[in-house]
Amino acid sequence: MPHHELVAELTAGLPSGSVLADPEVTASYRHDMASFSEAGTPAVVVLPRTVEEVQHVMRTATALRVPVVPQGARTGLSGGANATDDCIVLSTARMDRILDIDPVERIAVVEPGVVNAVLSRAVGERGLCYPPDPSSWEMCTIGGNIGTGAGGLCCVKYGVTAEYVLGLEVVLADGRLLSTGRRTAKGVAGYDLTRLFVGSEGTLGIVVKAVLALRPAPPPQLALAAEFPSTAAACAAVCSIMESGHVPSLLELMDGTTIRAVNAMANMGLPETTEALLLAAFDTPEPAADLAAVGALCSAAGATEVVPAEDAAESEMLLQARRLSLTALERLSTATMIDDVCVPRARLGDMLEGVAAVARTYDLTIGVCAHAGDGNTHPVVCFDARDPDESRRARESFDAIMALGLGLGGTITGEHGVGVLKKEWLARELGPTGTELQRGVKAVFDPLGLLNPGKLF
Amino acid sequence: MPHHELVAELTAGLPSGSVLADPEVTASYRHDMASFSEAGTPAVVVLPRTVEEVQHVMRTATALRVPVVPQGARTGLSGGANATDDCIVLSTARMDRILDIDPVERIAVVEPGVVNAVLSRAVGERGLCYPPDPSSWEMCTIGGNIGTGAGGLCCVKYGVTAEYVLGLEVVLADGRLLSTGRRTAKGVAGYDLTRLFVGSEGTLGIVVKAVLALRPAPPPQLALAAEFPSTAAACAAVCSIMESGHVPSLLELMDGTTIRAVNAMANMGLPETTEALLLAAFDTPEPAADLAAVGALCSAAGATEVVPAEDAAESEMLLQARRLSLTALERLSTATMIDDVCVPRARLGDMLEGVAAVARTYDLTIGVCAHAGDGNTHPVVCFDARDPDESRRARESFDAIMALGLGLGGTITGEHGVGVLKKEWLARELGPTGTELQRGVKAVFDPLGLLNPGKLF
Ligand SMILES: Cc1cc2nc3c(=O)[nH]c(=O)nc-3n(C[C@H](O)[C@H](O)[C@H](O)COP(=O)(O)OP(=O)(O)OC[C@H]3O[C@@H](n4cnc5c(N)ncnc54)[C@H](O)[C@@H]3O)c2cc1C
Ligand SMILES: Cc1cc2nc3c(=O)[nH]c(=O)nc-3n(C[C@H](O)[C@H](O)[C@H](O)COP(=O)(O)OP(=O)(O)OC[C@H]3O[C@@H](n4cnc5c(N)ncnc54)[C@H](O)[C@@H]3O)c2cc1C
Repeated sequence: MPHHELVAELTAGLPSGSVLADPEVTASYRHDMASFSEAGTPAVVVLPRTVEEVQHVMRTATALRVPVVPQGARTGLSGGANATDDCIVLSTARMDRILDIDPVERIAVVEPGVVNAVLSRAVGERGLCYPPDPSSWEMCTIGGNIGTGAGGLCCVKYGVTAEYVLGLEVVLADGRLLSTGRRTAKGVAGYDLTRLFVGSEGTLGIVVKAVLALRPAPPPQLALAAEFPSTAAACAAVCSIMESGHVPSLLELMDGTTIRAVNAMANMGLPETTEALLLAAFDTPEPAADLAAVGALCSAAGATEVVPAEDAAESEMLLQARRLSLTALERLSTATMIDDVCVPRARLGDMLEGVAAVARTYDLTIGVCAHAGDGNTHPVVCFDARDPDESRRARESFDAIMALGLGLGGTITGEHGVGVLKKEWLARELGPTGTELQRGVKAVFDPLGLLNPGKLF
Repeated sequence: MPHHELVAELTAGLPSGSVLADPEVTASYRHDMASFSEAGTPAVVVLPRTVEEVQHVMRTATALRVPVVPQGARTGLSGGANATDDCIVLSTARMDRILDIDPVERIAVVEPGVVNAVLSRAVGERGLCYPPDPSSWEMCTIGGNIGTGAGGLCCVKYGVTAEYVLGLEVVLADGRLLSTGRRTAKGVAGYDLTRLFVGSEGTLGIVVKAVLALRPAPPPQLALAAEFPSTAAACAAVCSIMESGHVPSLLELMDGTTIRAVNAMANMGLPETTEALLLAAFDTPEPAADLAAVGALCSAAGATEVVPAEDAAESEMLLQARRLSLTALERLSTATMIDDVCVPRARLGDMLEGVAAVARTYDLTIGVCAHAGDGNTHPVVCFDARDPDESRRARESFDAIMALGLGLGGTITGEHGVGVLKKEWLARELGPTGTELQRGVKAVFDPLGLLNPGKLF
């Protein structure tokens, strides 16, 4: 199908300025932030503003049998939003209205292109909070968060995106509009299609509206930092904190490689002999008491130093090291690839030791930061993308890390999703029966295979 | 297919005593606790103990094209576990082992026949809690809770069953074993089939094992009771409590009809002029302070009396009235039918007034108790099952209540499910597109339509 015909059909039902066909412009919509993963060249990019416009796009796509790739902010880390050749890229960037914030129902109703931080601030002004807080929150969209099932720092206490999506409006592959779920606090009428869409990576339909659950805003959190001589000791502390019944609002870990990278960049003065830094925070009524108890558990597990913050400002300073981790690791080389393996908490120590062994085997720098309280590690493979051998080793180490995680009873992705990057690994994790059923579900929603083809499977 | 052939095939792969074919025995497995809903007569009842035995049952069922109805404790209130004629009833009663309780991962691994209260007590001994607490908790099973997506009293703070199911093992219609989800705190590998099974009412597969999330046990809760001269005033209090950012661990409502029924049965001495009783509880570190604040909101909304408990024992006494509600209403007539409509909190007052109007229109006694904090009402229609006209009016009033709930932006079922009782209403709530997709999903898992046929659709 020639591009100009497709463009003409799309333009016929969309306001002017909504269809981008200039190859130089569309090229910037080719891929998300996963540098290993292949990306094609779109035929056209559309920027609809309304549900009806999305329906026009999907009807056109179905009529002309053109694949459609939904995109939020393209901060994804698995290639899930990457274009395929000759596709329509459907960007939700202009569907960015917050339609309702209701403090009695504790819900927000939003369009998919609303940026996570924009929503967070808006509900914050009403004394409410929308917990899922991926580190990309200033950029990523709610539609992308739903697409990937995003997590974040506070999820150890408040859970992930799936827990906060009550209902959806979705434009199906053929352009029909589907309503799922509800605006009420509870509901079990039929299969939970809402949750089926969460984490479906744009392969089942285009989310055009979401009803999100909110919580009352918690008190500001108070943090501590604990320094450990080994990752094993830090991971033992994580286990004893969780086993003792604490409910931290944040429990993050940085390994020695990450600590040194942060020091090199920002001169944080973290002791270079420290092999693991644990950050814990509480937003309870008595956070200082909780921190004292957790500090004692850290010391018992071998922490050489425990630094509790006195107030919110000091807490933010401590967390700054964690926030800089990715940027700091990125400086170590020309490219990074961020893995996302989640293991049972009790295996976190084995996971970190295993990653260190992988780094040695492949002669690469791999720094790890982790949502430790959830067992969710992000090994960051640093490599020189200009060096083919190093790139190959990086790719192999990335796979070795997933194999390690699966071997420890974990999953290949805690929060970033599968995209194109982890397709073969998804099949391994699901096994043949699981894969067959998942493909069956896909075919129910998208019988022609037009929605984000080549992702997941 | 003659029953004796089926029995022979089943017996060939099951230990002795696992296959019940005596019609007098199997008759007691015909139905759950929804008295309006039709039930058939099973050909045979099987009581497998192992996954392999369940697989044998399903392989036999598929080979012989015999429908299978999964049953837990048959406390369901929608006929979801009702037998169909000539079916195999598959009871999980003997699959009742708790396989693991892990305080570091905060998970329990259980077989489906474990009774909710048994699990709750077992995890309680480890300082943990499994929040979903349907009032039937001393009888109902985890498999049934997963089948219906059960809620309960503490769900206003802790959420429903769906939030606590991390992974499942499921025997499919053809006998294959499917693993879904994970043992880790997080995971987004592929579509969320785990959540698809929650609330699927035995129509997609037989849950044979579940990995459940646990929480640290909260402190004991402290309750108050507030008496209101009208349901409207009590519902206004519910809205102002939720709007003010309180997080009660329980927020229940009883209407005047229910109060008088409880008084008649148990002489609780509740004032008969009270038209609504609100019960609120907190399991926070300072519950008395929270109760004082909520008590003030109740008074502001028009409460004539606010009675805070001094301690856990007094709290239990206050909650006793709520616990007796159903039994007390059941005494008013020969039969009751419990509805389960959930509406936005702001429409709770309209819902209760609407139900009162329905009671007048159909000249019936309908008492309402509600998980008010969730907007989840249980109008209990009391009728004389021996009186055909009254039974017809009861059935019509039941439908009128669902119509009312849908009209208020609610759902026909907050937690009890659809079963056979609400099939036509499910189609109305989902609409044609939703229904078509749900049927498509069903066909992926159960192409021959053998699993719990006639439920949901
Ligand atoms: C610096 C950095 C930090 C990060 N930190 C975290 C973190 O802490 N936790 C975490 O979970 N992730 C994190 N991520 C990854 C990423 O931000 C998340 O995956 C995020 O949810 C993606 O949102 P997006 O709007 O950029 O979506 P995109 O990348 O554009 O798309 C993501 C997926 O969703 C689909 N999609 C998007 N919109 C829709 C829609 N409307 N309907 C249907 N499908 C749709 C896409 O097709 C794609 O499959 C981080 C990324 C970066 C770059
Ligand atoms: C007095 C009373 C109070 C109640 N209070 C509440 C309440 O507060 N909240 C609430 O939500 N419910 C409540 N209920 C309803 C009922 O207890 C719940 O629906 C409960 O979840 C049913 O569990 P069960 O073991 O009895 O399941 P059953 O009734 O036997 O089955 C329920 C459904 O699950 C399916 N099923 C059962 N086991 C499996 C399995 N292993 N695999 C696949 N499918 C399976 C069945 O086919 C059926 O569709 C109450 C009931 C009574 C009688």
